Amino acid sequence: MLDRDIIQSRGFTNVVEDGRVTGFAFRLRNPNYRGTSASLLDGIDVIVDGEKVPDHVPLWTVQGRTLTLDELRASTDLRWQLDETVTITVPAPGGLTAGVHDVEVVVYLRRPYFPPAVSRSAFDARATRVIVPPGVDGPLRFGVSTYSYSADLYTSMTLEDVFADIADMGATGIEILGEGNVPGYPTPPTEWIDRWFALVAQYGLTPTNFGSWVDTAMWADRDLTAQEGAAQVAQDLRLAHRLGFTSIRPKFGVTSFDLDPHPIWRETVLRSLDLATELGVVICPEIHSPTPIKHPVTQGYLDLIEETGSPSFKLLIDTGIFQTAPVDDGHEGVSTEDGKRPAFLEPLAVPVADLAEILPHVHLIQTKFFEIDDQLNDLHVPWAPIVSTLRDAGWSGWLSSEYEGRREAYRGRDQVRRQLALLRTLLT
Amino acid sequence: MLDRDIIQSRGFTNVVEDGRVTGFAFRLRNPNYRGTSASLLDGIDVIVDGEKVPDHVPLWTVQGRTLTLDELRASTDLRWQLDETVTITVPAPGGLTAGVHDVEVVVYLRRPYFPPAVSRSAFDARATRVIVPPGVDGPLRFGVSTYSYSADLYTSMTLEDVFADIADMGATGIEILGEGNVPGYPTPPTEWIDRWFALVAQYGLTPTNFGSWVDTAMWADRDLTAQEGAAQVAQDLRLAHRLGFTSIRPKFGVTSFDLDPHPIWRETVLRSLDLATELGVVICPEIHSPTPIKHPVTQGYLDLIEETGSPSFKLLIDTGIFQTAPVDDGHEGVSTEDGKRPAFLEPLAVPVADLAEILPHVHLIQTKFFEIDDQLNDLHVPWAPIVSTLRDAGWSGWLSSEYEGRREAYRGRDQVRRQLALLRTLLT
Repeated sequence: MLDRDIIQSRGFTNVVEDGRVTGFAFRLRNPNYRGTSASLLDGIDVIVDGEKVPDHVPLWTVQGRTLTLDELRASTDLRWQLDETVTITVPAPGGLTAGVHDVEVVVYLRRPYFPPAVSRSAFDARATRVIVPPGVDGPLRFGVSTYSYSADLYTSMTLEDVFADIADMGATGIEILGEGNVPGYPTPPTEWIDRWFALVAQYGLTPTNFGSWVDTAMWADRDLTAQEGAAQVAQDLRLAHRLGFTSIRPKFGVTSFDLDPHPIWRETVLRSLDLATELGVVICPEIHSPTPIKHPVTQGYLDLIEETGSPSFKLLIDTGIFQTAPVDDGHEGVSTEDGKRPAFLEPLAVPVADLAEILPHVHLIQTKFFEIDDQLNDLHVPWAPIVSTLRDAGWSGWLSSEYEGRREAYRGRDQVRRQLALLRTLLT
Repeated sequence: MLDRDIIQSRGFTNVVEDGRVTGFAFRLRNPNYRGTSASLLDGIDVIVDGEKVPDHVPLWTVQGRTLTLDELRASTDLRWQLDETVTITVPAPGGLTAGVHDVEVVVYLRRPYFPPAVSRSAFDARATRVIVPPGVDGPLRFGVSTYSYSADLYTSMTLEDVFADIADMGATGIEILGEGNVPGYPTPPTEWIDRWFALVAQYGLTPTNFGSWVDTAMWADRDLTAQEGAAQVAQDLRLAHRLGFTSIRPKFGVTSFDLDPHPIWRETVLRSLDLATELGVVICPEIHSPTPIKHPVTQGYLDLIEETGSPSFKLLIDTGIFQTAPVDDGHEGVSTEDGKRPAFLEPLAVPVADLAEILPHVHLIQTKFFEIDDQLNDLHVPWAPIVSTLRDAGWSGWLSSEYEGRREAYRGRDQVRRQLALLRTLLT
């Protein structure tokens, strides 16, 4: 689907020609209610961060052809359809800085069915959009979880849009929620699997982690047995492997406010390790607030790693544990009494030094966050020490972006771009 | 795509069993961020117009199976996926009245990965939704124009969603904008045409009118010739015919604030009549505000009808001409000076009696409107005299709903349901 905003979030980028940045570009959807012959387009004002580019300067790329305004006016066989974007390219040596920019446009369009005196119509649009800097070689790889798009997926975004979004910002990994994003779970139709691999190939993304659940309280009157838990994990290991994922994160039901996993977790994992090793899929319990690193729950996982020596059981870190400021935007389905913050939403502020100690056992990091402002400051999570800890340790693996802020439409896709811009800026 | 609101606009309906209305039903999308086993669903409060139905009373239809709450809790093989809706059926003899209702739900969902004390989560949602009364036999047929969905199409609605929306409310015709809704216009791919007919068959809709444009000012430096105009009309006649439409509405460029069509209109139409007759497609110029019925422009069309005696040239009436109150919600691309309403947006208030005189020459009526309130009052267009005029005259044909109010997301689809509810209420 196209963004509702006329100025699309995908496609905002610096333009590189012969190794030099010569300008910037962005995409627009058609602001009118019908498609139009390109000859009726009559210029575009572009105002970025308050600086105006006159209407005849930008180049238009329409249906794959790039034209000046005069060429556009004289064109005979090009159209701007409602379901297509055009790309506007603005010459600007050096381009735009990495980060958030205020982008405004006035699109001029002649409408012959309007009285001539008012037929040259001006369509205004304005948005903040993010320039993500290019990547640098290194052991850290960037992906995004579909969880980040929870407010949009299936309402204004298809799964293909998720792929397109991730690829457009320059990330290369995709994490999904098995029970969320696989139609017909646990037995998706073959056509969907074919489509999945077509998207993987088209957008050049690597499947990273497959979110999985072991609902120990699946039925109200009895708990799941370890055998049933292992059957669930086996099902997800096989499905994840079939879709090209290299880890699963089984989220066990919990028994306390400290998120102690249900006691079956241990036997369930032990029963699953051989299959995991056979498939080459790592089982990763998630270290998630309010459980810190130095805690019996985490220690229990580390003990199992040591006991088994298995390469197929590692940790997944959710960076929400490093949160230093509270988030009071509300959690769906969680009611608060008298507006008081529930204890499990207090910032945990785990020392980043604790991460350094367990990094050898960490398979993947979900870079959980809530809000990054227009100056690329994260309001809650301290990225500078996290990034330097990873770099100093030479840790290699996936950072999978997990936006968990307000579930407003279009907010997740904007925020994940901000996070990648922030993390890449910290790395250079 | 699913509606962003948890309570979907499609699917809100009275339930008829053995010819009697036994309750009402609506559809929900999953309020959580992941799909869930149906056994974790734990009831739903339903509050309609302030009246509460307890959480264990409604029936749940999940993946095609209808269950009581107890059956749901005990289920082992059913899921509520993120990309699927469930249907909630509430027993209520006589059902709900036609019109707008305030619908509120609290969905209870057990989440085993939350601390047990808070794992039964309550998800609230509220929306106003419209019950459309069933149709009555008669010569008036109801359809909807894709124009009504301008704020949503390609951003939160696919063309299939338009079909589904129209069929769900009980209308049976679809009008499209040729240059707006046909990908690759004027030469859509064969696969798209196949898909078009699959949708027509699946949703049981009849293609009605195909919106077309003759952009006489296509190029800034010269006007279109009548020959070029006729080529445009021929192209649209053929494409409309290929897609099963029975009329086209060529919107000619205009030369005045009275919307005088460009002088080539007459020769263009004359050159096109034989082809139109051969294809069985009627060419319909649109009578649109600020041009009233008693006006030289309309008279010019009537004269041509009389002169040629052709069955392939008739009128299309846009009910905006009957508007009695102004609409100041803004028109995209139209700037106003000092907030003053442009003259062509003044209500034209054509006497409905004028319509009676020309009805024999009217092929289709676009039921243009801007806002219908929660009591099904249209704030601008007088439907009672329009409907009685059509009924008294025994006019038969399509009323094609054309919402032109504020282009807010999701507003068009709600308003067209209100219009159909209003018109059907007036007819019974």
